Amino acid sequence: MTPSDLDLIASRATAAAPVWAATAPRRRAAALVAVADALTAASAELVALGSAETGLSEQRLSGEVARTAVQLRLFADVVVDGGYLDVRIDDSDPNFALGVRPDVRRYLVPIGPVLNFSASNFPFAFSVAGGDTASALAAGCPVIVKAHSGHPRLSSRTGEVVRAALTAAGAPEGTLQLIYGQDDGVAMLKDARIGAGSFTGSIRVGQLLAGIAAGRPKPIPFFGELGSVNPTFATAAAVADRPGELAEGYVVSVSGSAGQLCTKPGFLFLPVGHGLVARLATLAVAVAEHRLLHPSIARGYRERREAILGTPGVSVIAEGSLRIDDEDQGWATPTIVSVPLATLLAHRDTLLDEAFGPLSIVVEYDEEPALATVTAELFEGNLTGSVHIATGEDSPALRELVAVLSAHAGRVIVNGWPTGVAVTPAMQHGGPWPATTNDSSTSVGTAAIGRFLRGVAYQNTPAALLPEPLRDDNPWGVVQHRSPAGESLAWGSRVRT
Amino acid sequence: MTPSDLDLIASRATAAAPVWAATAPRRRAAALVAVADALTAASAELVALGSAETGLSEQRLSGEVARTAVQLRLFADVVVDGGYLDVRIDDSDPNFALGVRPDVRRYLVPIGPVLNFSASNFPFAFSVAGGDTASALAAGCPVIVKAHSGHPRLSSRTGEVVRAALTAAGAPEGTLQLIYGQDDGVAMLKDARIGAGSFTGSIRVGQLLAGIAAGRPKPIPFFGELGSVNPTFATAAAVADRPGELAEGYVVSVSGSAGQLCTKPGFLFLPVGHGLVARLATLAVAVAEHRLLHPSIARGYRERREAILGTPGVSVIAEGSLRIDDEDQGWATPTIVSVPLATLLAHRDTLLDEAFGPLSIVVEYDEEPALATVTAELFEGNLTGSVHIATGEDSPALRELVAVLSAHAGRVIVNGWPTGVAVTPAMQHGGPWPATTNDSSTSVGTAAIGRFLRGVAYQNTPAALLPEPLRDDNPWGVVQHRSPAGESLAWGSRVRT
Repeated sequence: MTPSDLDLIASRATAAAPVWAATAPRRRAAALVAVADALTAASAELVALGSAETGLSEQRLSGEVARTAVQLRLFADVVVDGGYLDVRIDDSDPNFALGVRPDVRRYLVPIGPVLNFSASNFPFAFSVAGGDTASALAAGCPVIVKAHSGHPRLSSRTGEVVRAALTAAGAPEGTLQLIYGQDDGVAMLKDARIGAGSFTGSIRVGQLLAGIAAGRPKPIPFFGELGSVNPTFATAAAVADRPGELAEGYVVSVSGSAGQLCTKPGFLFLPVGHGLVARLATLAVAVAEHRLLHPSIARGYRERREAILGTPGVSVIAEGSLRIDDEDQGWATPTIVSVPLATLLAHRDTLLDEAFGPLSIVVEYDEEPALATVTAELFEGNLTGSVHIATGEDSPALRELVAVLSAHAGRVIVNGWPTGVAVTPAMQHGGPWPATTNDSSTSVGTAAIGRFLRGVAYQNTPAALLPEPLRDDNPWGVVQHRSPAGESLAWGSRVRT
Repeated sequence: MTPSDLDLIASRATAAAPVWAATAPRRRAAALVAVADALTAASAELVALGSAETGLSEQRLSGEVARTAVQLRLFADVVVDGGYLDVRIDDSDPNFALGVRPDVRRYLVPIGPVLNFSASNFPFAFSVAGGDTASALAAGCPVIVKAHSGHPRLSSRTGEVVRAALTAAGAPEGTLQLIYGQDDGVAMLKDARIGAGSFTGSIRVGQLLAGIAAGRPKPIPFFGELGSVNPTFATAAAVADRPGELAEGYVVSVSGSAGQLCTKPGFLFLPVGHGLVARLATLAVAVAEHRLLHPSIARGYRERREAILGTPGVSVIAEGSLRIDDEDQGWATPTIVSVPLATLLAHRDTLLDEAFGPLSIVVEYDEEPALATVTAELFEGNLTGSVHIATGEDSPALRELVAVLSAHAGRVIVNGWPTGVAVTPAMQHGGPWPATTNDSSTSVGTAAIGRFLRGVAYQNTPAALLPEPLRDDNPWGVVQHRSPAGESLAWGSRVRT
């Protein structure tokens, strides 16, 4: 695009911002539901487009459309409820502990146009109408999507579907727009009118974009979901209890969508003598070849796979395969290797980096009580950390391991696998650096909306000049938290030991 | 300090972090109240120390100690209530819209040691035991305070008082520590063990520190409260109604604490022919000379004052004075000037920057309906924006102005002055850049606690391995929000237009 095309897009988003922000909750929610309905109605067409462009199966993509629609519906309810606005009303208080307190009312307002760099590996759920877009729209922010180069036709068509639904529901022009190409994305991120950036992708690109966002004359928040190796552990008791279930769950989680998920378990820690090698090999070999998303992912995967297979001390459980076809597309079957814990420690520089594709490393450990310390030492921030235990199993070592996982990850899972993120109010999809650029954020779950809001307080303001959610007559019917007069004299009195 | 001294301090904070984080709410709250009690008990001694070091009056500083203690008590109640943990529990749901939903429970956890760069102008409320420290401690984070060079003895003594209270209340060693000097502050900000930074001070230093925080190998959030000129407006009707009250309120707000407040009204927009010049001059001249906080503030104020007085088109209402004494301390009386709006527009490069001290600019406007547009064009982000109106006054122009102020500021005030920030649940003290580095944050009010937390979800985790706030038996008695099974099938159905 020319600079003036980009300028027009930023202008449209800026013009839409106050209109969309002032749209009453039920109308904004109805627009989100309209988008969900439109995506559902267009599912067959969109899934066919997406499957051709990404190599992901139609079954997987249909599920993703459903997830994307459910997410929009969930956010619609959140918008109507209004709890996310965090409305706080302090009544004026002549007896306030520090002299007269004015009437102060605070809520959260949208921060303006959001630029969303979409992901390659979720052409619906983290793309044009995915989590970042849905949460920004729910917050009341117009969205500019930088479409991923891996599925441009799907992005364009999805954009048309979403825009038509938004327009029919009364949303202003400029509520959702698309741009294409890295240069245009970077130029837009530098535009003074953009209020925040969101991103799902590699650590390298995420770091670059986060630096641009922080280095602008007016810095803006940047929410990047970058890389994660998702360490997974099984206790000896769990292996003894459920060897088949463990082996099967692991191979499914590693190989689903050809391992191109940010929550793929990159490491499974098993006790020495676990006896699962033959099972894992059989299960992995049975997985059909799967296309990788695009040529650059295939190249990156080849490099990581060769580095891991070439590391001294690495044993092959299932060698798997990677071939590059005439159109430069990669095709892979799962590669599963194992190393003693000592080898992982010795070769951490090679082995610890994420391998984006169907490869995972089994790490054989001797002593369960040492796992917590080793985990704390080895791993940076992750999206998830998982542990498989026997029914009712409990021990100081296990508690210590869970504590370390919760310090290093955004989600701790017991007896489950990290892939398949539930879209629910309590979900956390984000974790300490480098899992996310901003570890207080999540890109899944209703808390994702909070990324695109800031607080504004109104002091001593007559009802006629107050925004609807702060008025006593509460025309939007949102949740309001009130601090009555007189309370302050008792502050601190709820303390008992 | 030597690098090994700093290392020891970071180690102690790191060791304290999990212990303080796991301290039960009532005990953590009791420790906050103990600090409030200790500060109150030591008030006379601390105020005398502070007044000698800063030149602020004992009356002002006594009030500040009271405010600091009240804030700790308020935060103690917030800790016990537990609503700030944002506990969300999704019941497992076999009928979930996207297949079986696991049990997912999410809450907010402290992000580890916080480094707090304290301010010169609030030796209690934004210093060793001030808002940033109190909110980080309430969140469950140990704090390292970089003491301000303007009041080192007060900082050291306050640190002793706070530490003794925390220790007596059972907080771990390392919960609060002090360091001194800019080099040590920067070195500590780069330490990998620090989880976040907070700061109150100049745009220049804040930008520098924010850049360091963003450029670390592992970036961390940085909450800086930088600069603000707090535009203030009066309608013709307000001036006609309450000329004396307006003039008096303005001069008090400009000159209190020698104008060394981040919320000082830097501009008052009055209608042409307001007739307040003589009143303002009389009131300003009557204000006694006040010491400035430290020599570098005096130098900065001299430079800004001379630049403003030397700008063509600036008329003097009260020239005021600035003298530098033998000990390099500045002493000032209020300077109030006026310009036609056209002059402000023409000389915005000189006139718009903050003058930190008792100087303010009256801007004379012709047309009320033009104010909103001019305000949007002139001002960057601010902490506050205020408007004085007649009782019951309302007009499209006024509504537009309020809307622009809410887009450019964190707090909108009607018929009040921005100085004197109430410490209450609904307060917002933060605003779009450059008022704060992170405009979704506040450094006053209970929402300040949220800056030092991140979300963690537990999936399918047995009660024995869950943290207390997420357990069904809720031993801490915190607020829990539950999403029951079955709900998802109705998501989106609350939408009606």
